[in-house]
Parts: sequence; C-alpha cells; structure tokens
Amino acid sequence: MSRKMKISERAAAAKAASIRLGAVKTEVKNTALNEIAKALQEHSAEIVKANERDLEAARTSNLAAPLLKRLKFDEGKLADVCAGIHSLIKLPDPVGRTLCATELDEGLELYRVSCPIGVIGVVFESRPDALVQISTLCLKSGNAVLLKGGSEAAHTNRILGDTIARAAEAAGLPADWIHLLETRQDVADLLALDDRVDLLIPRGSNEFVRHIMNSTNIPVLGHAAGICHVYVAADADLDMAVRVTVDSKCQYVAVCNAAETLLVDAALAEAFLPRVQAALAACHCRLKGCERTRAIIPVEPATDEDWATEYLDAILSIKVVDGLDAAIDHINRYGSGHTDTIVTADRDQAERFLNLVDSADVFWNCSTRFSDGYRYGLGAEVGVSTSKIHARGPVGLDGLVIYKWKLYGKGQIVADYTGPNARKFTHKKLR
Amino acid sequence: MSRKMKISERAAAAKAASIRLGAVKTEVKNTALNEIAKALQEHSAEIVKANERDLEAARTSNLAAPLLKRLKFDEGKLADVCAGIHSLIKLPDPVGRTLCATELDEGLELYRVSCPIGVIGVVFESRPDALVQISTLCLKSGNAVLLKGGSEAAHTNRILGDTIARAAEAAGLPADWIHLLETRQDVADLLALDDRVDLLIPRGSNEFVRHIMNSTNIPVLGHAAGICHVYVAADADLDMAVRVTVDSKCQYVAVCNAAETLLVDAALAEAFLPRVQAALAACHCRLKGCERTRAIIPVEPATDEDWATEYLDAILSIKVVDGLDAAIDHINRYGSGHTDTIVTADRDQAERFLNLVDSADVFWNCSTRFSDGYRYGLGAEVGVSTSKIHARGPVGLDGLVIYKWKLYGKGQIVADYTGPNARKFTHKKLR
Repeated sequence: MSRKMKISERAAAAKAASIRLGAVKTEVKNTALNEIAKALQEHSAEIVKANERDLEAARTSNLAAPLLKRLKFDEGKLADVCAGIHSLIKLPDPVGRTLCATELDEGLELYRVSCPIGVIGVVFESRPDALVQISTLCLKSGNAVLLKGGSEAAHTNRILGDTIARAAEAAGLPADWIHLLETRQDVADLLALDDRVDLLIPRGSNEFVRHIMNSTNIPVLGHAAGICHVYVAADADLDMAVRVTVDSKCQYVAVCNAAETLLVDAALAEAFLPRVQAALAACHCRLKGCERTRAIIPVEPATDEDWATEYLDAILSIKVVDGLDAAIDHINRYGSGHTDTIVTADRDQAERFLNLVDSADVFWNCSTRFSDGYRYGLGAEVGVSTSKIHARGPVGLDGLVIYKWKLYGKGQIVADYTGPNARKFTHKKLR
Repeated sequence: MSRKMKISERAAAAKAASIRLGAVKTEVKNTALNEIAKALQEHSAEIVKANERDLEAARTSNLAAPLLKRLKFDEGKLADVCAGIHSLIKLPDPVGRTLCATELDEGLELYRVSCPIGVIGVVFESRPDALVQISTLCLKSGNAVLLKGGSEAAHTNRILGDTIARAAEAAGLPADWIHLLETRQDVADLLALDDRVDLLIPRGSNEFVRHIMNSTNIPVLGHAAGICHVYVAADADLDMAVRVTVDSKCQYVAVCNAAETLLVDAALAEAFLPRVQAALAACHCRLKGCERTRAIIPVEPATDEDWATEYLDAILSIKVVDGLDAAIDHINRYGSGHTDTIVTADRDQAERFLNLVDSADVFWNCSTRFSDGYRYGLGAEVGVSTSKIHARGPVGLDGLVIYKWKLYGKGQIVADYTGPNARKFTHKKLR
C-alpha cells in the first residue's frame, strides 16, 4: 500500500489486484479477516495513541463536540470493529454463487455466477471505524478498495490501513487490494477515474454525498437524503398510529430513516392530532403544521420548504391530506425514495400504498426506523441506497457483487444453429 | 403523448405515469401489448407510407446504402416486430416477484419484491423497429419511456409512437407512459434530467454510446465496444480451435460479440497458425499478427493499436502468448469486458480463465458469438451491458426492474427492540 504512487497508478494496481482477489477461496479470505482482527488487537496501543494525536489536533482546532466523538477510536471502538469482523467471517461468501443455469443444448451449459464488482472507492468522513468496516466488507466480497477518510483522522486511518494491508498480505492475499488516499486532490483524482474505479460509496452528510454524486461519472451507491413519511389513514387504530409516529420520529432523530413528515387523513385529524401532539410533546418534539393542522392544534406554520426538509432533529412537519392517493402523491413529490409507512386497518389500502409509493422501503403498520441492514437480517450493511438500479434500500454484501455468464461447451459454434438446417436450442432450466 | 410540452414536463408526466403503470396487473399489460400489435397491423399502410417519405428524403440526401437498409420499415419488418410483441406477451411478468422473504419477528414480515425502475430514456439510431421493441419491453416491465430515434426516421417514428400510445391508452394503460423526442436539443435536455429519468439505454454505434455515457449523470445500460478474444491454449484440440476461431470471427463480422483478436499459445503456434490461416483465408478474412506470428505465417504486422481496435469487419489480429496468464493479462488490458473464450482440453485451465478474465461473458470451448439474449434463452434482449453494476452481458427483461422492500407489521416499533429488555429479532427465512 504505497502512498508514493499517483492515484491513477494506485487504481491500476488495485484493478490488477482485484482480479486476483476475485478468485481467492472463501477459506483464505476468512483467514485473512481473522488475521486482520488479531493484528488490530495486537496494535491497539499504537492505534489508540495515533488516534490521540488526531484528537489533540482536533481539540486545538476547536472541532465541535459531536465530531470529536465520531473521531474518537478507543479500545471500545476497536473491540466493536473486531466483533464486526468476526460476524463477517461467519457470513456466507457472496462470490461464486450460481444464480441460474440453463442448458442451451446438450453439452452447452450456461451459468450466471456472482463475482466481485472490481475496484470500490470509498469516501467517508471522520469515523475511523468506517475504514475497518468497509475494507473488510470489500475483502469478503473480493473487491479492491481505495479509501479516503476525514483528514482530521489522518494518523488513525494510516495505522489502521497499514495494519489491515500487512495482515492481509501475510495471510496470502494479493498486495495492492487496499489503498489509502489522503488529500482532497486525491479525491478529485479518484472521481475522474471512471475507467478504473467501478463503484463509489460515499459515507457522511447529505451535502457530502450529493457533492460526490454530482462530481463523478462513476456509479454511486448511497443516499443523499432521508425524508421519510408516516401516513395515518382514515381507519387507523389511533393508539397504534401514535406509537408508530413517535417511534418513527423520536426513537433516534439524527438518522436517515427517522420520519420528517406526518400525513394525517382528514377523516381522523380531529381525533388523532391532539393525541399525537401530546405524545410528541413528551419527547420534546417541535411541531410544524399546514393550515388544516393548525385549525385543530396550535403549532408553528409549515411551508412548502418544510415538506422537502430533512430535519435530522426533534422536529416534525404535519399535513392533513384527503385520502390515500393524496398521501401517495405527496410522498412521491416531496419524499426522497427512502422509507415510508402507512398505518391502516385495511389490507387493500396498505397494498395500494406499498405498490404506488416509489420508495426503497415501504411499510405497513410499523415504524420507519426498521429500515436498516441489521434489523433486516442482512448481517452486514454496506450502506443505504436510494438509487433505482443495482441495489436499493439497506444494502448487504450482495450489493458489492455482480455476476458473469460462464458458458461451458464442447466445441459448439453458432453457424450450426443458423440457416435452414439449424440445430435448435433446448433452453432447459438446470437450476 | 403531447409533443408541445417541454422535455422536463414530459419527463415529469412520464414519472407520474410510471407510478400508475408499475401497479398495472399482468393481464392488463398483456392485453395492451396485444392491442398494440393489432393497431400496428391495422395501420400498416400508413406506417409503410410514412416510412417511404423518410426513405425518399434519405435517398435525396444520399444516405449510405446500409443506413437506408436499416431505415426501411416494410410489411416484413412490421410482421417481425408484431411477432416479437406476441413472444413478449408469453414471457412471465418481471414485476411483482418475491425475491426473498424474512420473518423479522412474529407478525413482522419483510419481502423483497421486484418492481419497475421508473422512467427509461432510450436513444437509438435509424432503425424504427427499435422503437417498437424497446417501448413494448418497457410496457411489459412497467416502465415509462422517453424515446429518441434517428431524425431520418422522423415520420416513421411519429406514426409508430402515436399508434402505440393510442392503443395502450385504449386498453386502459395510463396516458403519458410513452413520449417521443425529436430534436438534438430534446436529447441534450433529456441527458440533464437525472432527477426524473432513472436509466438510459443508448443503441447504436460505439461512438454514439460513448458520447451518451460521457454526457450524462443518468445511469447508462449499454456497451461502447466489443473487443472479444479467442485464446487457444497449449493443449487445445486443433480442429476445435480452428472451428471456434472461424465462427467467432467470421460467422457475422459486424457485431459486438465477434472476435477481434486471436491469442495463440506459443507451444502450439507452429502447428496451429498455418491451419487457422488457411481456414480464415477461405472466409476472406484479413490477418494482422505480432512478430512471433509473422515468424510462422506471412501476415501484415499488428501494432499495439490493433489490440485495442474493434474492426467490426473481416479482419483479425493475432498474438502469440506464453501461457494462460499472459493471455488473461492481455485480455484484461486490451479487452472491453464483453466476451472471451478459451479453447483447452483442461478443465482447471478453463476455470482459471473463466474466473480471472474480467468480462461479462467468459466461455470454454465454444464461439464468442453465443453471447446473445436469444441464444441465452432470455426471451427478449433489452441490450448488452459491459457495466459492472446492475446488469451484465445480454440483458433480458430482468434488467428493466429493481426491487423494493415491503415490511408488513402489526404496530411494531423499534424502541421495543432496543435497550436492556430488547425483544430479539427472529430473522427466519420464509422463502
């Protein structure tokens, strides 16, 4: 993992390494992961010391307290990432799975087999644990990775990256599958390498992700906003609607799957709004509402801008709507395609909502906060995607693989399958 | 399908229509497809007449003969596209399939269900049949479509588009799912609509596809080149190697899955090259070779540029290589990630080739010309992709869908699954 090479050269080296890594057997990858966890534990003192240097510099430059907290990488964080590596070892290898198989003719068999994507670029903000998580996810899925962390974590990231690279190489993995980038210029160079980097995963604030998405031709896996909705339908159970609303908004406000807007059917607004207001008040949640909401409960006025705002805070906008289709239209217009839930007693209404709301995650009678790789049982979360191709919603290891078509023949040629005496394809499903 | 609206407005209308179309039942979509085929047949005289206007104008402006042939849309072409529609009706609906299902807890069930992507932009060159094929593929997969054909086919495309739109609407589909764009400015506007268009499919020359790929932030499904290889390994059966080489190169030279470079293992170059030369000479194929090739058979010299050239013609470049890994390295360096084949008697060598060659289609002992949606048994081909995400190789209807996560609950909230007395997730696989 040389830091002297140019970014384009490092990407080329990573590309070459990714080819070899893609063919490495599951056992070898799992051994390497185990060695990485061991090496991180063995170097814990140095790692924590490097992190203290970063923390010291951050304090000197008056970094805000929440950022300092994210930057901190102590024995506890180290134990967490190592536990994550051991869970990852237990997950099935996403590479080499036969997705389908067809006999084209006797002795001519086609297999669609999962394989790594190639070279993944990951740009993340201050949390050094992201470096360990994402690089080990890439290793397990056979991908090479170019990583750029926050500059305020430079010392921590350097020792983490070096430790991972050395342990993996000692375990028999090809060198050059992992590279650390360090400067803003490195990132600018990375974003231009659409011929060598196959996928970008940006982690961080919405502005940051949007900036990356707008600055590159490389495909991006991520989400730039999480404007999630709770729609309380005319026939909703009021107790359930209050519980789901409070959990969706207040269980953890600073995350992308927290609700930002509550849509209330006009038919039960009078009965529901005062109850949900009381429950949200107990969570110190500030409310903003449309005129019809304000005619029932006294809250601040909400403007059009509110419907398009991800507060990431204890603030909720409320709108009274006339029926299911009005709710669906509002969500498809103002939402971010992330997660939206309906509370209703009627299965048909629910199905219509789930089918017509154009979001990655559409829920019936439960909290928006369930949309998460861990809660979905994916085992490991690569990220959350609001893209409409490749992978959508919480993305597990599956999002880091694609497939190739392998055709096994015995000398067959296409000329024999064309013309007046053409052989016929059997197209028999083998699997 | 109004042509008076601005492109951004048409895209917005298509987006809204795509939501409704995504929920249309299979039977209704199939009825609409049947009505479209009927309407095309009923209007055949007008369609052929419109096409004659385009042909006349093209002749006047001295359009080249092969382009005139592609532009021509007569009764025979019309019958072909209608036969294509009837095959499409018989294919299973790619929408609404449950891809996996997990019980997160009792009464909290997660389903990953296939759904349309949304709005597809298709930019194609002169062939009017592409308009019918791609719009009906989009309909079957529940996607709205914005189509831009070659300006030389303007009259033909207009009547085809109008006929399809009217027939579909009469069959109960939402209006505005199909829009025709007509000018270069329309395309420029389309390429900028990454907030409203979810996927672009460019069809046409490599330069054209590359231009589209370089001019938009919208994801592109396609391939800009097909530099395919045949590698004849040291232990190859010579007869088989000759047959596979000739078929890969000469069965049809003007297509992306035809071979452009033959790699010959040094160990059998002396025995093999004269034989393959004789066979290729019978097909009037021009040969270019590396120095080691030229030491065995008298052919034109090949330069580095040849290894990176897609001739799309009866020309083949030949290189002598030292063993399997040299062949793999050459292909990964100069190839386009499309289709590559190895001829060898040894299964282990073959598996190494299939695993390490980073191409969409990797073959053992058969012709590169097999990489094709029809031959693969996909039923319908949306296009061929050399992308590393979403869909790779020949893409069937599956490439026009993504999935959403549907979570069915009974009032569950995340707060109950956190903290000291947290409920545990069951994560039981249901399907």
